[in-house]
Amino acid sequence: MSTFTYDGLPGRIVFGSGTTSTRLLRELDLLGAERILLIASDTEGELATGMCAPFADRVAATFSQVRPHVPVEVAELARKAATEADADLVLSVGGGSTTGTAKAVALTTGLPILAVPTTYAGSEVTPVWGMTDRGRKTTGTDRRVLPKTVVYDPDLTTSLPVPLSVASGLNAVAHCVEAFWAPRRSPVSSAVAEDGIRHLVAGLSAVETCPTGRAARGDLLLGAYLAGSAFAVAGSGLHHKICHVLGGAFDLPHAQTHAIVLPYVLAYNAPNAVEASDRIARALGRPDIVTALRELGTGLGVRGGLRDLGMSEADIDTVIDDITAIAPADNPTPVTDDGVRAILRGAWAGDDPVETPR
Amino acid sequence: MSTFTYDGLPGRIVFGSGTTSTRLLRELDLLGAERILLIASDTEGELATGMCAPFADRVAATFSQVRPHVPVEVAELARKAATEADADLVLSVGGGSTTGTAKAVALTTGLPILAVPTTYAGSEVTPVWGMTDRGRKTTGTDRRVLPKTVVYDPDLTTSLPVPLSVASGLNAVAHCVEAFWAPRRSPVSSAVAEDGIRHLVAGLSAVETCPTGRAARGDLLLGAYLAGSAFAVAGSGLHHKICHVLGGAFDLPHAQTHAIVLPYVLAYNAPNAVEASDRIARALGRPDIVTALRELGTGLGVRGGLRDLGMSEADIDTVIDDITAIAPADNPTPVTDDGVRAILRGAWAGDDPVETPR
Repeated sequence: MSTFTYDGLPGRIVFGSGTTSTRLLRELDLLGAERILLIASDTEGELATGMCAPFADRVAATFSQVRPHVPVEVAELARKAATEADADLVLSVGGGSTTGTAKAVALTTGLPILAVPTTYAGSEVTPVWGMTDRGRKTTGTDRRVLPKTVVYDPDLTTSLPVPLSVASGLNAVAHCVEAFWAPRRSPVSSAVAEDGIRHLVAGLSAVETCPTGRAARGDLLLGAYLAGSAFAVAGSGLHHKICHVLGGAFDLPHAQTHAIVLPYVLAYNAPNAVEASDRIARALGRPDIVTALRELGTGLGVRGGLRDLGMSEADIDTVIDDITAIAPADNPTPVTDDGVRAILRGAWAGDDPVETPR
Repeated sequence: MSTFTYDGLPGRIVFGSGTTSTRLLRELDLLGAERILLIASDTEGELATGMCAPFADRVAATFSQVRPHVPVEVAELARKAATEADADLVLSVGGGSTTGTAKAVALTTGLPILAVPTTYAGSEVTPVWGMTDRGRKTTGTDRRVLPKTVVYDPDLTTSLPVPLSVASGLNAVAHCVEAFWAPRRSPVSSAVAEDGIRHLVAGLSAVETCPTGRAARGDLLLGAYLAGSAFAVAGSGLHHKICHVLGGAFDLPHAQTHAIVLPYVLAYNAPNAVEASDRIARALGRPDIVTALRELGTGLGVRGGLRDLGMSEADIDTVIDDITAIAPADNPTPVTDDGVRAILRGAWAGDDPVETPR
């Protein structure tokens, strides 16, 4: 029988093609926004300005100095901009770094956020914030940073480059797969994650052939939303812990590392995670889920193993302790040194993943 | 592509066998409860007193005059009890009428509710309240009445009589099926509703053979929770509008009416509701969803048609206008006089439901 604790997160989602033209002003009105701090990097500057044209008189200030991983100096500048403008709402238009900057402002000021995502990051539906101080990242969870409203308009993502779309989409798949065994999993996060996989796979399969296709972009953005909301509730599991350690130790590229490692963690867990396996099989439409997930990656250009990203075989043994130290205690297959070594060895060589004996 | 607006509801769910012994006190502590108004009818009196024994000193008052449909006089008495006890939290232990009484108190006092459901009503996760004044029912929606925490303990429901369990369970199935086409449907409510059907059908199929079986009770209570939360978000559709009118006009028994009518509404909508049909088929594990749903009912003792509940054939035409007047505008199959007549004629006679031509 299920035993779980589920903390439902509040938040309003408006999703659909053209919603930034047809619905944004109304949503700002519902939040009573009169003095808006607009956060958008230069890349999205033109897009954001156009979007705000119907209510330009309410944009009290614009902050564009967005940087990856939200350096504390940037957070301070953005907070100062909010205070000086006497802002009553932060409107973020952009990807994960832009949303992250808005969250840094909300964390200390308590200002509400309306987020308009332009990538498949998913962070706009989580209460997780992150900042970096001299290269060192601090993260935390605070409901104040959870956007009050998110307006998803897939039309904004049609120009997102395919490689970036694929990398984001595969990351979102990892969030869904992990949601089935992450520490705070619940029937709600699992149901949402299953559908997330369905939409992400449909979108990923279509976006390469037709990058501007609205159906593919709609599936990817919807899948990214579902993945983000499953992750927001369930938290991260073994796969994310492994990728976190690998990324920190060897400076490996985030997206490729995730895409390579996931099938090996799935092979490790699946035999002892019946519900997760059933859900993934339903979502993928085939029973051989490890092979299917790996083929999804290779079909999208994920080739080889971690060795092709520059990791050496001798590196494997240096991170095993760090991984087992932070691995979730209730991972479906108990996390042992040998288990982690097998996952890393497979992912390093790029061999076909071998499922753990049940 | 999906277009939707989704208002996520806050709220904490603690679910599992024995949680009222192991977790209730901790959850009350998290809500800072020091002076509790306990609401429990005489039926649940002993159960509630036992449950509260570990924190009896914090129970400032007990209210037991619970009545069906929450008469306004009862609501007033319960509010008075809360004020006189200077309560800081309402703890409800019971079925829908008990939760409803707690909601009536919260509506005017703003007191937080911790709900411990003992039936499969599902109302503990909705912001909907209802009261009756001289037989006339008023309902409304207010987030203040949404319980802050719900502690679900399937062990409390093992003694719920099988006929009542079946009636509640089938009602919950109706909430799930309607969630796919109700006015405020979203990918989240649909994902949750699909799993709701899965758990309800598993529980309903098992509870008759083994009424005290924990697995069956766990599935029913989990399914009821998922159904309630899907309904809370999506709202009610054609089926509920029809049953509401029939119930009001002919004083038909609530549960049987729902159980008889649902397959006919499904047959009317399914051909034009592809996603709903796919989800129901996945949840039921078979493609002939109308037949499957009807067999589920007949297997559980739902026999005959509305005529067997005392409705006359001449009654059909008297309610068609009332139904079309309140039918949702975006029902998958447009709601016409002839359409409603066909649904009612079939449900009245108890004939095999005939699907609408696409």
